[in-house]
Amino acid sequence: MLIVQKFGGTSVGDIPRIKNVAKKVKAELDKKNKVIVVVSAMSGVTNQLVDYANQVSSLMSDESLAEYDSIVATGEQITCGLLALELQSIGYKARSFLGWQIPIKTDDVHSKARIESIDSEFLLKFLEENDVAIVAGFQGIHEASSRVTTLGRGGSDTSAVAIAAAVKADCCDIYTDVDGVYTTDPRLTDKARRLKKVTYEEMLEMAYSGSKVLQTRSVAMAMAHNVRVRVLSTFEEVTENSGTILVNNNEEIMERRVITGISYAKNEVRITLAKMPDHPGLSAIIFGALAEKEVNVDMIVQNISADGKFIDITFTTGKDELERAKAAIDSIKDEVKYSDLKIDDNIAKISVIGVGMISHSGVAYTMFKTLAEKGINILLISTSEIKISVLIAKEYGELAVRVLHDVYGLGIK
Amino acid sequence: MLIVQKFGGTSVGDIPRIKNVAKKVKAELDKKNKVIVVVSAMSGVTNQLVDYANQVSSLMSDESLAEYDSIVATGEQITCGLLALELQSIGYKARSFLGWQIPIKTDDVHSKARIESIDSEFLLKFLEENDVAIVAGFQGIHEASSRVTTLGRGGSDTSAVAIAAAVKADCCDIYTDVDGVYTTDPRLTDKARRLKKVTYEEMLEMAYSGSKVLQTRSVAMAMAHNVRVRVLSTFEEVTENSGTILVNNNEEIMERRVITGISYAKNEVRITLAKMPDHPGLSAIIFGALAEKEVNVDMIVQNISADGKFIDITFTTGKDELERAKAAIDSIKDEVKYSDLKIDDNIAKISVIGVGMISHSGVAYTMFKTLAEKGINILLISTSEIKISVLIAKEYGELAVRVLHDVYGLGIK
Repeated sequence: MLIVQKFGGTSVGDIPRIKNVAKKVKAELDKKNKVIVVVSAMSGVTNQLVDYANQVSSLMSDESLAEYDSIVATGEQITCGLLALELQSIGYKARSFLGWQIPIKTDDVHSKARIESIDSEFLLKFLEENDVAIVAGFQGIHEASSRVTTLGRGGSDTSAVAIAAAVKADCCDIYTDVDGVYTTDPRLTDKARRLKKVTYEEMLEMAYSGSKVLQTRSVAMAMAHNVRVRVLSTFEEVTENSGTILVNNNEEIMERRVITGISYAKNEVRITLAKMPDHPGLSAIIFGALAEKEVNVDMIVQNISADGKFIDITFTTGKDELERAKAAIDSIKDEVKYSDLKIDDNIAKISVIGVGMISHSGVAYTMFKTLAEKGINILLISTSEIKISVLIAKEYGELAVRVLHDVYGLGIK
Repeated sequence: MLIVQKFGGTSVGDIPRIKNVAKKVKAELDKKNKVIVVVSAMSGVTNQLVDYANQVSSLMSDESLAEYDSIVATGEQITCGLLALELQSIGYKARSFLGWQIPIKTDDVHSKARIESIDSEFLLKFLEENDVAIVAGFQGIHEASSRVTTLGRGGSDTSAVAIAAAVKADCCDIYTDVDGVYTTDPRLTDKARRLKKVTYEEMLEMAYSGSKVLQTRSVAMAMAHNVRVRVLSTFEEVTENSGTILVNNNEEIMERRVITGISYAKNEVRITLAKMPDHPGLSAIIFGALAEKEVNVDMIVQNISADGKFIDITFTTGKDELERAKAAIDSIKDEVKYSDLKIDDNIAKISVIGVGMISHSGVAYTMFKTLAEKGINILLISTSEIKISVLIAKEYGELAVRVLHDVYGLGIK
């Protein structure tokens, strides 16, 4: 078998942990598998490098983001070299591969580049006569300019899935500091239960809704290329029953269920532009300006005053995008003429997710009724085919997760 | 003018110092010069990376040294990105260049590669429409394998001189933490005087003899390509009279002098193989074994016993090469049959250097007589056309430097 293993920053956080990772790789090699390992930077290293860059630059231009990429990509370069050395030391034929060496070709949107293609031939040829290739995650190359690019924070998950797709790996094992995907964050309730299987769609909604187990883009890519992804713990023995497997919607899920999990996000901010004179194209102006500043908008609600003359628009975005959002709103102030701008970061978003809700009614009703019974006010609602999200005051966040987890019967029986 | 500037690890040791370096670059740009900057890793970074590598590998194989190179090369990658960002922030068109991007092509002797060629076209084309190129020192690429190589410790000096030669720069300014080359180490005598000019040959002998201002290979390369090198301080204002300029033997030195400087090395060790039965080819066996283990031998002396039957061979090498030297000697123990092996690291090497001594007799006599008058015993002597070195007991090292500095009239008048 050909297996891709990915290890995150905590898993390779220091030299003893890198040696532990080598044992996980050895376990697969001992089974006569060929292995491609994808690694992140040692935890803390990327933050240190980002901090250096911020001390000398506002990182607003394309040119500065190109330098940023070249700087932060060194974190993964260090880890993959060290892991290659350790695997050589314990007797395997191993070498490291940087993004430009393979190459992993991307577009030129520095600091959040997208992978365009991966030359799998070089890697596969290497593996014919060697045991294990260690690839620096998170990085690629924009070929025309010969410059290093990075895929954005958490991009190593995407690197791993993209490589697994390119080499047609039998499996892509994502090793992390949790032992799988849970019905909800185990820190919020001790009844949280590990899911043995979860569909790509559910995982995607969970990633969007605040679960940090896998990066959203990596899940979308796994879904598009049908890559068999397993989420496993670096710090536990791996057995047949370990971890969580991502599967297709229509197969493999034995135990049918309506709701799969509850996600909880507290890094959002709610912005309201109040009492704007209504006119056609108003929301196009607002969300156009936000898109221009690359602000990702999550939930949106629009209210019209009783007399139909004034309009309020409320939306949510990530806290780290607030400054860009403010700049966008400021740029259209004279056009949209809001009389008040409200910003509230004292909020939490709770999402109920499950492919089963497509064929089951009453999921939303249960959610709203349960929250009402606890006196929790719903500020905003948004839905997809397999998800219902509500925005509530942050102080009720953990309580809401626990009561919903109980009411949908997700807990350990 | 086209100027190459090189800044060492202390000069770029933290963010404020990188900002200071940007000012030194700006000073040249303000004079309408085009500039190529070569940088080392921030001080401490390379040591940290080497320490990581040593924790997972003995670094004995070619494959492991290839990983070592890829790991340690990240130090310079970080610095050149940060300096590019800072120069962009203060309004210049700047970008960083890694070894593989230019490319700086080397052989495949990982961890001490030699530069084979530099593609100056890419750099010069960039400078046509931009202000300043920042190049990662110390690193290159072995093209056939697409792998990162490094030039050995202190290799950034060599990178700078090689680039200056390739682009035919008007000047190569090496910025360091001292303000030039001195008649001797200023920590040993307050009479030490900065030399305004020094010949390539003298600088080469000084570098060999323990002066750490410039790496030996960089001086040899400057001499071969006739690169005008200036040694300057990063921490002082640069004026017409600053620093030390490396010049050709036969020109430019106004003030003729016999002796240029005194070098002092205390990191050597003396090894004696005593009482070996004499036979033809004995020294070939010994120094062949040492060469095989890549031990650099400095001074050599051979003594024959009165009856001509036994032979002693004494040589010196660097302390950091002692383990390899011992292994080499051990491998030929049965062949050369020494009856005693003496190792002494309690020694110092004092060298008197000057192109003028070619045409002046009596330099050696003055040296030996001066030392004898102070009761300093000479253990070994070696000479070149422009240098006389003696080995003495370490405790007399600093005294010897001071009296010789006086007797040759090198001090500040």
